[in-house]
Amino acid sequence: MGQSLSVVRELPRTITSSKKRSALLALIVILGYLAKKHVEEKKRQSRSIARNAASSQDNRSRQTKRVGVDAQFFAQIKKLLPICIPGLASKETALLFGLAMVLIARTWLDIWFSGFNGHIVKAIVSRDRKAFIARAVVEFGFMMWPMSIVNNSLKLTISALALSFRTRLTRYAHKEYLKDITFYKITNIDNRIQNADQLLTQDIDKFSDNLSHLYSDIAKPIVDMVLFAYKLGEAIGQEAPIYIIGYFMTSGAILRAFSPPFGKYTAIEQKLEGDFRFTHSRIITHSEEIAFYGGSERELDVVNGSFDKIVKHVKKIYSLRFINGIFDSVLVKYCATMTAYYLLARPVFDEKYATEFMGKLDTDPTKIMEDYSRNSGYLVNLSQAVGRLILAGRDLTRFAGYTSRVAELFDVLEDVNNGRYERTMISKDSSEANLNKAVTPSDIKGKVITRDGVIIFERVPIITPNNDVLIKELSFKVETGMNCLISGPNGCGKSSLFRILGDLWPLFDGTVTKPSPSKLFYVPQKPYLALGTFRDQIIYPDSEIIANSKGYDDKRLMELLNVVHLDYLIEREGGWESVQDWADVLSGGEKQRVAMARLFYHKPQFAILDECTSAVSVDVEGIMYTHARELGITLFTVSHRHSLWLLRFDGEGGYVFKRIEDDDSITPFAFSHNKTGKQKFTQDFDDQSDES
Amino acid sequence: MGQSLSVVRELPRTITSSKKRSALLALIVILGYLAKKHVEEKKRQSRSIARNAASSQDNRSRQTKRVGVDAQFFAQIKKLLPICIPGLASKETALLFGLAMVLIARTWLDIWFSGFNGHIVKAIVSRDRKAFIARAVVEFGFMMWPMSIVNNSLKLTISALALSFRTRLTRYAHKEYLKDITFYKITNIDNRIQNADQLLTQDIDKFSDNLSHLYSDIAKPIVDMVLFAYKLGEAIGQEAPIYIIGYFMTSGAILRAFSPPFGKYTAIEQKLEGDFRFTHSRIITHSEEIAFYGGSERELDVVNGSFDKIVKHVKKIYSLRFINGIFDSVLVKYCATMTAYYLLARPVFDEKYATEFMGKLDTDPTKIMEDYSRNSGYLVNLSQAVGRLILAGRDLTRFAGYTSRVAELFDVLEDVNNGRYERTMISKDSSEANLNKAVTPSDIKGKVITRDGVIIFERVPIITPNNDVLIKELSFKVETGMNCLISGPNGCGKSSLFRILGDLWPLFDGTVTKPSPSKLFYVPQKPYLALGTFRDQIIYPDSEIIANSKGYDDKRLMELLNVVHLDYLIEREGGWESVQDWADVLSGGEKQRVAMARLFYHKPQFAILDECTSAVSVDVEGIMYTHARELGITLFTVSHRHSLWLLRFDGEGGYVFKRIEDDDSITPFAFSHNKTGKQKFTQDFDDQSDES
Repeated sequence: MGQSLSVVRELPRTITSSKKRSALLALIVILGYLAKKHVEEKKRQSRSIARNAASSQDNRSRQTKRVGVDAQFFAQIKKLLPICIPGLASKETALLFGLAMVLIARTWLDIWFSGFNGHIVKAIVSRDRKAFIARAVVEFGFMMWPMSIVNNSLKLTISALALSFRTRLTRYAHKEYLKDITFYKITNIDNRIQNADQLLTQDIDKFSDNLSHLYSDIAKPIVDMVLFAYKLGEAIGQEAPIYIIGYFMTSGAILRAFSPPFGKYTAIEQKLEGDFRFTHSRIITHSEEIAFYGGSERELDVVNGSFDKIVKHVKKIYSLRFINGIFDSVLVKYCATMTAYYLLARPVFDEKYATEFMGKLDTDPTKIMEDYSRNSGYLVNLSQAVGRLILAGRDLTRFAGYTSRVAELFDVLEDVNNGRYERTMISKDSSEANLNKAVTPSDIKGKVITRDGVIIFERVPIITPNNDVLIKELSFKVETGMNCLISGPNGCGKSSLFRILGDLWPLFDGTVTKPSPSKLFYVPQKPYLALGTFRDQIIYPDSEIIANSKGYDDKRLMELLNVVHLDYLIEREGGWESVQDWADVLSGGEKQRVAMARLFYHKPQFAILDECTSAVSVDVEGIMYTHARELGITLFTVSHRHSLWLLRFDGEGGYVFKRIEDDDSITPFAFSHNKTGKQKFTQDFDDQSDES
Repeated sequence: MGQSLSVVRELPRTITSSKKRSALLALIVILGYLAKKHVEEKKRQSRSIARNAASSQDNRSRQTKRVGVDAQFFAQIKKLLPICIPGLASKETALLFGLAMVLIARTWLDIWFSGFNGHIVKAIVSRDRKAFIARAVVEFGFMMWPMSIVNNSLKLTISALALSFRTRLTRYAHKEYLKDITFYKITNIDNRIQNADQLLTQDIDKFSDNLSHLYSDIAKPIVDMVLFAYKLGEAIGQEAPIYIIGYFMTSGAILRAFSPPFGKYTAIEQKLEGDFRFTHSRIITHSEEIAFYGGSERELDVVNGSFDKIVKHVKKIYSLRFINGIFDSVLVKYCATMTAYYLLARPVFDEKYATEFMGKLDTDPTKIMEDYSRNSGYLVNLSQAVGRLILAGRDLTRFAGYTSRVAELFDVLEDVNNGRYERTMISKDSSEANLNKAVTPSDIKGKVITRDGVIIFERVPIITPNNDVLIKELSFKVETGMNCLISGPNGCGKSSLFRILGDLWPLFDGTVTKPSPSKLFYVPQKPYLALGTFRDQIIYPDSEIIANSKGYDDKRLMELLNVVHLDYLIEREGGWESVQDWADVLSGGEKQRVAMARLFYHKPQFAILDECTSAVSVDVEGIMYTHARELGITLFTVSHRHSLWLLRFDGEGGYVFKRIEDDDSITPFAFSHNKTGKQKFTQDFDDQSDES
């Protein structure tokens, strides 16, 4: 450190012409930055190697990317900014302009204050009571109002800016995320993004907050620098501002060359916090299974383990910050102060210099004092400005962390909306490693034909997003009126069949003929209850307006409730408009009935009751079959069969307990590896269809 | 504002004896605080009324509590502190002590610097070059090191403190949360707490962070105040420090009396952020249902709605901060500066005063200047100290927000661990409103008898946590070897029966005879896969040590894998130790088989296969029945039966498609309202048990 100081202190002697001077300073700065870039690059390489080694162990650490203020960062910003600031006519532009105004006003006030301080001091030293009161009471008493208004306007504008950035980004993200079934594909088909909810909530928030502060953290110092450099130059000559700025840039460059990549560390910390939270939301999701298994102790180890990772990482960070901070403040703060002392003292001690700038060497203590305190005021402000600018650089790397996360979210959203998916494939044979496979629209060769009253699968392969082929090719045909029961073990392709039918999974090949989506309806086992009014539960996903346009006023909806014996709910829950935590409020049976009412409301041609994920209660089943028939809804249901002892509840509080005799259809299915059974099937299917 | 200033400026004239003076100041302060308390209380009442009106609409807003620095707050802190700082011998105590040392060191350095500045100025005014260099270069060049080390140690200690607080709290919370099945009860039985994961991760973090800063935000100012007040008193008489402190306390009191309850607003903001995140994690959880329903547009409205609430609230907050901030800075910052000018100028202008304290009125400008800049140094530091102390008060209210959330979590954890539950009951008949019902240990009258080889339910009522009676009283008996099939609609009590059998739900009445938990085993439909190694999947929830103690080395585990045809996984996934995102890596069928291997590993007397939540694939089913019989495992299975068309996959890629003939057991069940069928049952049950 001592060195760099002496460098600065040597400068004035060695250099004479102002041109040469600035040239040299420029040189120092450039050299400094080159050094930085070089060192950082070296570090980065070694780190990324280390990481790759690690990442192979932990699947989730795929997320960790190298983050820094590099080309990639600016590319990301370039993508995100237009979303934050849609145009010149936008509210954001106005806010940014307002902010600029406020910043200038504030700088002007700082200048005024430096001068003002000088006057006060003079009044005191010269013991001029009148002048003192005029200044300290009258002038200051008036000026304090603009000062405090400006300062608080600054905070206000920044918060307002942060909020409107966040609003823009969130709205945009929501639009993309909830376009068609993107949210489903992001969670289930593409697996580049984990915990999308954190990205959509916290990370966007953090990004906007940083962005808005960044503007003021960079704009204000620059305004200050220019203004105070000018003022200072006026007072004690052009050299002063050039030296001090040059000094700061050099020291700043040196520091950044040797300071650790805190930006990346922050990103990693964010990631670890995300993982930690994931381990917890996991427990909540699977609480019942864990409880049944009595797995609490194991889970305790897991959450503690995940938390320990955070602790370890944070400890590392703040130790680094400590070491780094010491040299930091010495260089940026204290050595700078010494330089400042030197520059302020110069016109007082250096006769030649003084005469050069102030005509003559001033000897009147009062005058010296006034100048000194005014100039130091300028210098302090100037230094602070430069200091903040350098620190802003560091914030920039932290900011880069959030940027990369938000940018990644937006990229994936765009990809998925354009039918491009990526996921780490789990290769079945151990030879090839798990590879990131990308699916492009060209991979999806399947054809969809929209036709009413029939569902036909022709040579449709059933392939999971993980590329497991469940069924080479499936062909069958169901027409209206042919209620159809689907059975088979888990993971055999029943649900997958529906996912393809419902356009959730890409149709890789073959042809699917089916009615328009509005004529297909799916009833999951856990009846999904939306956040909203009771009416919303019945007409979901329609809105009230749509429902009315379909001619469903509350009277007709009430008829639906009557069918499923839920009319009493209206009174109990306080009418159609009442908003409740429905999943909490309704009993299991009631949820089932709501799902039925919803089915009848939508009156589809085909209803899918995926049973290994959907059990329909006996009474509801009765209603369903009869009423569905009346409405001409054809049902797809899934089932398994078992034997042995039967304890059967009727759902009304009674039960019977008896042995049921085995029949052929009840014994565990014989394996029929019937890969080429298509012909056979279609044919005996045709017989059937005649019957029905 | 002007008033309060003039008040301060009148004081010196009106008051003579130092005793009276401090008495009056004390009075002002007390009055100020009383005013504050009164006003805040009034506001608070009106607010809480408004809220209650609102809360009836939105069920989730139950969470919103009145939060402030009140008795409740201190009670909560009193509960949480002992967890953060377990004892005098603890690491935290050491850190706190270290922090205190650092703070004192820093204050000492500030004092040094004020004096130092005086010397520099003197050197300049008296144009003493030697002195200047000795000070500015030698002394400062040496002192900058301790300064920067101390400053950074401060940051270091605070972060370290924050982290170790968080560690203590998190570990404790984890212990309580994952004790037995508390996590399950918190999510499913007690419903006072929503999103426990946020509380356990972010909120504890924020709380610890605030707590650690709070200490330094309060301790440092106090140390500073004392030291600088003393120094200032030395220099320009006892009056100065008393006036300035008195001024600050008064203005502070006035401000806090009229400033809005930002603490509560922060808590509300946190809550809204939590809700917003909830709407998103909800979408992720139900992504498939929503996708099938095509509900993305509705969900878009929901998330946007929830986000708008945040926007509205945040806007309100920062507008309030703006207005509040203006008067704030005028009062605390600028009027204070004027007071300071007055106090500093006094010894210069007021002859009587000067002679009283400095022997004589000083006229040498150099001396005046030196004193002035030193004293102003003291005064500035003193003022800053007081200012920080007042601001700390405001942070305190923000802090109160986090405290109340964390404290609530810990209270509920304690309650639930002591068998006390609370939830908003959904009253079936509309007459009575939904009431918060608490369940105390005394309500649970059921008796559990541990006996091997048999499960007996005697007059056991099946009651949901929501107090719906599904079955008045259930009695049945199953002995080893009696594989048992349970059937019935959803929400009829099948799963509930298991939850009672598995001690998940309280046993309100009757008697349950069953083997020790280790001899009962549950196989859920979605085979739960733990985070951890492949071995962990098989032996879950045992740890490797336990597995070994049970004599299960990898060789014997391999035998289990052979039984379920999973031996190839070892090679594919890279051995027993490999850690993967198993839910992602394993296919549906593989998951099923893992669950089976787990079942065989644990060799329970009874295995529960809750089928409406558990589908076992055909081949696995075969293995299961045979191997389970060999191991002497008795199976409980649940099923539904259906008729009509059958499209059956065998899980190997083949399928058949045929009509299955109805038989009596297949037609939708006739309702048998058999409430009093117990006698009948036990008796024909006995016949049966003879048969088997």
